[in-house]
Amino acid sequence: MSKPGQLADDQVYLGTYLLDRLAQLDVKQLFGVPGDFNLTFLDLVEDHKNVDWVGCANELNASYAADGYARVKQAQLNQIHEGEQADSKPGQAQGSSGSNKTQGGVRGLGALLTTQGVGELSAVNGIAGAYAERVPVIHIVGVASTKLQKSRALLHHTLGDGQFTVFEQAYQGITCARAFLRRAEEAADEIDRVLLAALTTARPAYLTLPTDFVFLPVSKKRLETPIIPESVGFDEKDVLPTGKKVEAEQQKRLQFVVKEISRLWEDAKEPIVLVDACAIRYGVCHLVRDLVHATKVKFYTTPLGRAALDEVQENGYGGVYVGEITDPKVKEVVEKSDLVMMVGSLKSDFNTGEFSYPFEQEQVIELHSDHTLVQFAHYPDVSFHLLLPALAKALKPKPAVSQPPSDAGLKTNIPDGDKNAMVKQAAFWPMVGEFLQEGDVVLAETGTSSFGILATPLPKGSTLISQVLWGSIGFVTPATLGALLAAKEAPRPRRVVLFTGDGSIQLTVQEVATMVRYGLKPIIVVLNNDGYTIEKLIHGETARYNDISSWKWQSMLDFFNASSQPFPTKSWLANTRGELEAILHDKEFQAADKIQVLEVKMEKLDAPEALVKQGKLSAQLNAA
Amino acid sequence: MSKPGQLADDQVYLGTYLLDRLAQLDVKQLFGVPGDFNLTFLDLVEDHKNVDWVGCANELNASYAADGYARVKQAQLNQIHEGEQADSKPGQAQGSSGSNKTQGGVRGLGALLTTQGVGELSAVNGIAGAYAERVPVIHIVGVASTKLQKSRALLHHTLGDGQFTVFEQAYQGITCARAFLRRAEEAADEIDRVLLAALTTARPAYLTLPTDFVFLPVSKKRLETPIIPESVGFDEKDVLPTGKKVEAEQQKRLQFVVKEISRLWEDAKEPIVLVDACAIRYGVCHLVRDLVHATKVKFYTTPLGRAALDEVQENGYGGVYVGEITDPKVKEVVEKSDLVMMVGSLKSDFNTGEFSYPFEQEQVIELHSDHTLVQFAHYPDVSFHLLLPALAKALKPKPAVSQPPSDAGLKTNIPDGDKNAMVKQAAFWPMVGEFLQEGDVVLAETGTSSFGILATPLPKGSTLISQVLWGSIGFVTPATLGALLAAKEAPRPRRVVLFTGDGSIQLTVQEVATMVRYGLKPIIVVLNNDGYTIEKLIHGETARYNDISSWKWQSMLDFFNASSQPFPTKSWLANTRGELEAILHDKEFQAADKIQVLEVKMEKLDAPEALVKQGKLSAQLNAA
Repeated sequence: MSKPGQLADDQVYLGTYLLDRLAQLDVKQLFGVPGDFNLTFLDLVEDHKNVDWVGCANELNASYAADGYARVKQAQLNQIHEGEQADSKPGQAQGSSGSNKTQGGVRGLGALLTTQGVGELSAVNGIAGAYAERVPVIHIVGVASTKLQKSRALLHHTLGDGQFTVFEQAYQGITCARAFLRRAEEAADEIDRVLLAALTTARPAYLTLPTDFVFLPVSKKRLETPIIPESVGFDEKDVLPTGKKVEAEQQKRLQFVVKEISRLWEDAKEPIVLVDACAIRYGVCHLVRDLVHATKVKFYTTPLGRAALDEVQENGYGGVYVGEITDPKVKEVVEKSDLVMMVGSLKSDFNTGEFSYPFEQEQVIELHSDHTLVQFAHYPDVSFHLLLPALAKALKPKPAVSQPPSDAGLKTNIPDGDKNAMVKQAAFWPMVGEFLQEGDVVLAETGTSSFGILATPLPKGSTLISQVLWGSIGFVTPATLGALLAAKEAPRPRRVVLFTGDGSIQLTVQEVATMVRYGLKPIIVVLNNDGYTIEKLIHGETARYNDISSWKWQSMLDFFNASSQPFPTKSWLANTRGELEAILHDKEFQAADKIQVLEVKMEKLDAPEALVKQGKLSAQLNAA
Repeated sequence: MSKPGQLADDQVYLGTYLLDRLAQLDVKQLFGVPGDFNLTFLDLVEDHKNVDWVGCANELNASYAADGYARVKQAQLNQIHEGEQADSKPGQAQGSSGSNKTQGGVRGLGALLTTQGVGELSAVNGIAGAYAERVPVIHIVGVASTKLQKSRALLHHTLGDGQFTVFEQAYQGITCARAFLRRAEEAADEIDRVLLAALTTARPAYLTLPTDFVFLPVSKKRLETPIIPESVGFDEKDVLPTGKKVEAEQQKRLQFVVKEISRLWEDAKEPIVLVDACAIRYGVCHLVRDLVHATKVKFYTTPLGRAALDEVQENGYGGVYVGEITDPKVKEVVEKSDLVMMVGSLKSDFNTGEFSYPFEQEQVIELHSDHTLVQFAHYPDVSFHLLLPALAKALKPKPAVSQPPSDAGLKTNIPDGDKNAMVKQAAFWPMVGEFLQEGDVVLAETGTSSFGILATPLPKGSTLISQVLWGSIGFVTPATLGALLAAKEAPRPRRVVLFTGDGSIQLTVQEVATMVRYGLKPIIVVLNNDGYTIEKLIHGETARYNDISSWKWQSMLDFFNASSQPFPTKSWLANTRGELEAILHDKEFQAADKIQVLEVKMEKLDAPEALVKQGKLSAQLNAA
């Protein structure tokens, strides 16, 4: 590895510069796996005051963890906004750099460190998921020195053909920006460029750091200019250089769109707001809340929009809407509406009940980060960052006429059942609703859990993480590691509760050991129903290929806990509904003061109603 | 999923056609993970007589398993050749298709099945490793129907942008061929094309199978034409259409090269042969053996060339050569040679002692699959498949003058040590040499194990798998799953012995559960030295980033073994050298009649001598 050289007083190493930039953007945790091309950079991480290293068990898991960290950080930023005045400017929390203040409030950012070839290519799926679901993660790859690269050396961790740029190809379609550091004089600029791109597009970016660049001297003065200029807002379009004339143009366009929407709003009998993923990702939840409060309309969320605003009925909340698979009582009310304002919508199959929205385009307004749709009209460059506050002022109150019944996923409504039998999915998820507390971070694996949680009311200040679009099974276990570390940065303690299946957790189980090692305290709920239930419901109900191996979940924490000073752990087993009730009411379990596993035995083909419906819809679509 | 339609008597479904092709190529195991876009194809797998499904815990692991399967199959094909006459034709084992005979003898092929997006992108690193190390693996990806693709549907497992070809990009630099099935009429041709490419280049290929193509009717008659024409040999160049004139050209060129080499050979005092990776991968081990026998020269192997020929001294074997890090007694003899004939060399850093071969180019001949080098002269299209037999006839015997001492890695030479202390690496690997038996399949993880095994003599008929070039930590555990299934296809029972570290096994540990589930019987040796020793020796000896979590290895098999009829397992612990000796001599342990774990406690920074040297060389090169 290249040795640190002498630095002038006004210089920092490039590696430190990168870490300082991350710290300015409120990144406190760097996830990854050591490898011989990132070890000297890791020396700088180990010495850094504000960025900590989180050594994961493998790179895919580390990428999931970085994603989970960014999502929870973003949710927490949204909650900070919740406490702000409606007229406060976005981006205001961004401090001047060079100081220890962070450029927080901008975007929840995650960071991942891997090594050339073997490491980076193990993380492709995790980064693709962040791209699909709009989570900014900076993927830093330690690579061979520029000198070795130029000599086309036949190094290990290469294809043996002297090529060093081939791996970057894997990241082309799934990152918003890539920098392959080759020239010393532009290295710092390139770092800033990809970080800015990740922040403004809410998508992952890729950066290689050659071993001989780690100790390049860089002027400290650069750090005084923040990555995101203070004068601009959140949105990519906003940070483009804009003169006065363009601003006036923008104002005119904005006012036009406000007028168009006001006209429709005026005529509507019962408008509603449907909050979706990008409202969370682009940090406009507080603006939606202001609009909803000002206009007194009911709002609903999609699966990906859960917990964007506090899901409290007094707040105007009406329930989860997922087209055909919606709770019938909620569905009826939503579909009565004659004007649907969708905020940050992401209309993927699982987020829309397999594309089953019944709305006519004449009834629809869509607010996005970079454009607006009003009926059939498309308005580029009209962003919800500016439009939402304008609408909150312009639109007249339209209190809801129809009210969804209060038991439609809004409060716990637990069906009766035999206490001595296995708990049914239909009862389990409402029971979870009773168990959850204010501020909880909840993670639900794609499958039984992500569909089941639709029937679980979420308390005030809670966060729900679920990969509804990308749907990579195994994601949530390592994402929980990231969520735990993000939650520790919240002003108040937050419990972190993971719901996963006995099939899904097997893909990424080793990250539970990392939680043990760092003394973290999740509640890990394993729904043990003996196989890939979601696949069985789509196809192959009794096929052997949907079976998996059986593990002793009660032994997991013990297996992963061999350090000389073992961490306190507790494993619980609920064979019956009665046992589950007792555990959920147990003060020790509720306290979440140690890492805990709760294994819940469930019937093989018992599934949440929403998943049964989705399975049928998926099978139909695939067959069409 | 699309439903099976009616088939005429002379038709098969496209999915079955693909499986029949795999069966013809002697692929008996398909590794992977179910996902909703591959489930109907899995129905056909479940019904197929000759191809079995191996459900893995995740996709990266499945790709490693498919690679391990292919490597051991290739080694077994080489061993079959060992029993043949020198003049038998390669490719002869290939049966006529349409029958149940396989086109075996051609190449050890592995097969992997994943699902669109999430699944395929989790396997990128595994496929890249197969590409680097020249292992043919066909990666089949179940994707959405062509109809859904054309409609740009916002499906789960996509980026949500209507694009379906973006994932293929990740495979461009790391596969020899890719087919993205879009048109029914060319689907079968495309399948044949990528399979042929994988076989002829010994590299992985990529194939998407849309759900609506699984049940396409295909003429059975196609299956009567073998993928590899019977009249041609192994090599890519050979299967290109060749007229008579070109063959005569080739003959002339070949004879010229034979004459050039003969001239050098004549003048040489002490020529040697150095066998490397591609001799194994391209199936010419038997041809090298014939050459060595005919000329009576000594042969040596690189780390990647281990066990290419039986490493028995009477056979002409002289030891392992790795440049600077070679056992000094072997090094001395090799470097005395005045003519080195390298067969299938792959001169990567870890395979050459960090590029420390001292040979002058005037002393070197290199035989490759697609070209030959004689001193400074490059001869394209002269393949070792044709050249090796020609040389065996043309070259005069040159019996070795210098003999390496017989204790230089050729027989067990175990240093003394305290029986009540932890076993030292220096003693451990020769002890392993005594433990190994004829026919064993040995897998050594990159790091302590891959360097340690250099000091372990390998018995007759054994196979060694180690990812020396790509060096992806975590590879060997799932590769062991593939190796176990391949070994079951061998004519005689073979033990499968895995050597890994407590750090490395954590990356991919869940595949041990798959071995339990399928009732397989590996011996899993975990060198428990508390962290990433190889990284520590390169950089950061005491840095916290090279520490890992501690697991209870004695509990692993129990954790993974919860089925209603648990499999017999046994876990062993060697705290001391004395305990280790007792276990290695225990008949129950040696019998390998159940899955076993042997945990060997070792000192944190104790490492094989070769690894210590390599660590220093790597650090120097990185610093240069």
